[in-house]
Amino acid sequence: MKITIDQNKFNEGLSIVGRASSKSITLPILKNILLKTENNFLNLSSTDLEIGIKWWNLVKVNKEGELTVPYHSLSSFISFLPSKKINLNKKGNNLLLECEEYKTQINGISAEEFPIIPQIKEKEKVLIESKILCDSLLQLIDIPSLTKVKPEISGIFFLFNKEELKIVATDSYRLAEKKIILKKDNKSSFSFIIPQRTARELVNILKEVKQDIEVIFGENQILFRIKMSDFNHPYIELTSKVIEGSYPDYESIIPGKYNTQIILNKDELLNKIKAASVFVGKINETHLTISPKKGEMVIKSEDADLGNYNTKIKGRADGEEVNISFNYRFLIDGLSNIKSSEVILEFVNENSPGVIKPVGKSDFVYVVMPIKK
Amino acid sequence: MKITIDQNKFNEGLSIVGRASSKSITLPILKNILLKTENNFLNLSSTDLEIGIKWWNLVKVNKEGELTVPYHSLSSFISFLPSKKINLNKKGNNLLLECEEYKTQINGISAEEFPIIPQIKEKEKVLIESKILCDSLLQLIDIPSLTKVKPEISGIFFLFNKEELKIVATDSYRLAEKKIILKKDNKSSFSFIIPQRTARELVNILKEVKQDIEVIFGENQILFRIKMSDFNHPYIELTSKVIEGSYPDYESIIPGKYNTQIILNKDELLNKIKAASVFVGKINETHLTISPKKGEMVIKSEDADLGNYNTKIKGRADGEEVNISFNYRFLIDGLSNIKSSEVILEFVNENSPGVIKPVGKSDFVYVVMPIKK
Repeated sequence: MKITIDQNKFNEGLSIVGRASSKSITLPILKNILLKTENNFLNLSSTDLEIGIKWWNLVKVNKEGELTVPYHSLSSFISFLPSKKINLNKKGNNLLLECEEYKTQINGISAEEFPIIPQIKEKEKVLIESKILCDSLLQLIDIPSLTKVKPEISGIFFLFNKEELKIVATDSYRLAEKKIILKKDNKSSFSFIIPQRTARELVNILKEVKQDIEVIFGENQILFRIKMSDFNHPYIELTSKVIEGSYPDYESIIPGKYNTQIILNKDELLNKIKAASVFVGKINETHLTISPKKGEMVIKSEDADLGNYNTKIKGRADGEEVNISFNYRFLIDGLSNIKSSEVILEFVNENSPGVIKPVGKSDFVYVVMPIKK
Repeated sequence: MKITIDQNKFNEGLSIVGRASSKSITLPILKNILLKTENNFLNLSSTDLEIGIKWWNLVKVNKEGELTVPYHSLSSFISFLPSKKINLNKKGNNLLLECEEYKTQINGISAEEFPIIPQIKEKEKVLIESKILCDSLLQLIDIPSLTKVKPEISGIFFLFNKEELKIVATDSYRLAEKKIILKKDNKSSFSFIIPQRTARELVNILKEVKQDIEVIFGENQILFRIKMSDFNHPYIELTSKVIEGSYPDYESIIPGKYNTQIILNKDELLNKIKAASVFVGKINETHLTISPKKGEMVIKSEDADLGNYNTKIKGRADGEEVNISFNYRFLIDGLSNIKSSEVILEFVNENSPGVIKPVGKSDFVYVVMPIKK
């Protein structure tokens, strides 16, 4: 292998594939990344056997070849180089790097020892706008609980219908559902659950790209592919296992009606819940009283040792008066992930889940269990 | 106590005094801060018995009084309030706070239980520009080692002469000395050692102020005082114990002459040492060869498992060729704290300490021990 690549491009590729490289001591080869020429492209690959990431870039190839080198050392070293051309030259199992007056040798391991990232058996393929998928995932990515008892809810559920994608996350205390209208109608309905970590790596990749992303579903596997903007050639591919099992029937948890509704300024509400958090004690309890007649909501919290808190917030309200308590953290999480300046709060009664929704858009719903009396 | 204060001023005061408040479980009163009226001022005080911080602000005093309340809860709560007027009202040992529609009670402890921050017996007093003292401390604040064997070098040494202040730090592997020209000639020479933590708290205070700072030295104690810009009244006071013992005769460690000198671009040198760091192995060794005849310095590092690194850097050099090795971290620390775009490196021989200095200013010197052969 003998190639020339720009430092900033190489740096970019390393930072993308690096997130799948493992720190495993049992399988040291997983600490390495695979460098490989493919026609006029350099391909970088990394995997921890759960997730695999590949990245391609057009380079000057003088001699074909492949090799693996320790990811961490290579990427730190490249990041310190000036943004100039770098010559990479394979010599035995070692990689020689030259960039201006810098001369380096990094000891590698033969490419044959690197695990193969399995090819997906394509069953379904959908195209989605990267920015929309990224922003949508960010609205609920922190919700899944990492329980081993219910592995289904440790991931994020993707449900494709004809015209829309729903993504869902829950930890059994709260649940969020986000809807994305698809660009092109989809042939069939299908669904899968991706691990929370896959979603995090996907978000990190999507943050950096403008091109649309292909979501390709196969048996027990999912592939997210971004193509180069100027060639019909893959640019980045993220392959991941999917979580087995069926996702709970979450739609039955979202209340279909309400007895009390109030519309509030989101930032004011967030600040008043944050201030309440100082006095919530160990069970994090914040108490809300919605009084539609007065057009206001009273927020209270109390800690026997520390003291107590009381404030109110004006809003447009409708229905019956309700007294209800929540874990303040769940309220803050839901409110923080809503983009609109006003929010709708809906309640059935003091023992039923509350609903938080944006005003103006019906693409996001956050359901939160109350602290029961 | 009954007073009115602006939220942003109260927030500022709390963030300043908070850093001395303790998390001590054995003395829970140290988790509290003292609020006290003094004529038309509110005074906030905190202490962990090593360091004490006081802050004053002009407020509307309706009724005099004093009280202690838990620092953490009070400051979190205040930070969430809108920037409006807050009414503070003492009721028994509790503090009632009202700000617009917010109503809060925080349970406190009587002011009588709060330790007295001792008054200093003033022996010496000097005035220094805050920004200069802050920037100077930042150049060497990370150097002291937290050894209990040699408590003297766990602190920062202040040495006042007639016209200048020298501040010095060492961990016995490297040493930095910074000189500050005093605004007014000083009557006598005196010196003291302050704990590293005192220096850190001082830097945090100095970052926020524009006024000059008074350094007042007393028996076993040091007081740093900033006055209000519009009144001759204290604004912030930091009191600290000083470290007992005498500081080592550090001046004899700084080489008085050199056999090899090279002047280099600082950023280029820093980047090339950082790149070398990838290959330094466990003892962090970077090897330098300065060749005055070629007008260059070669930088090498090698790790038996990982690989090796070699680069050079052009410079204006003078004297004999020298081969010398250093812990790369100590070089990076020294270079990072030099502000000039070019640096001077000076060496006596491969077993003597090297010197790093800025070009253009003679107010800073960094001495570093080599890795001996």
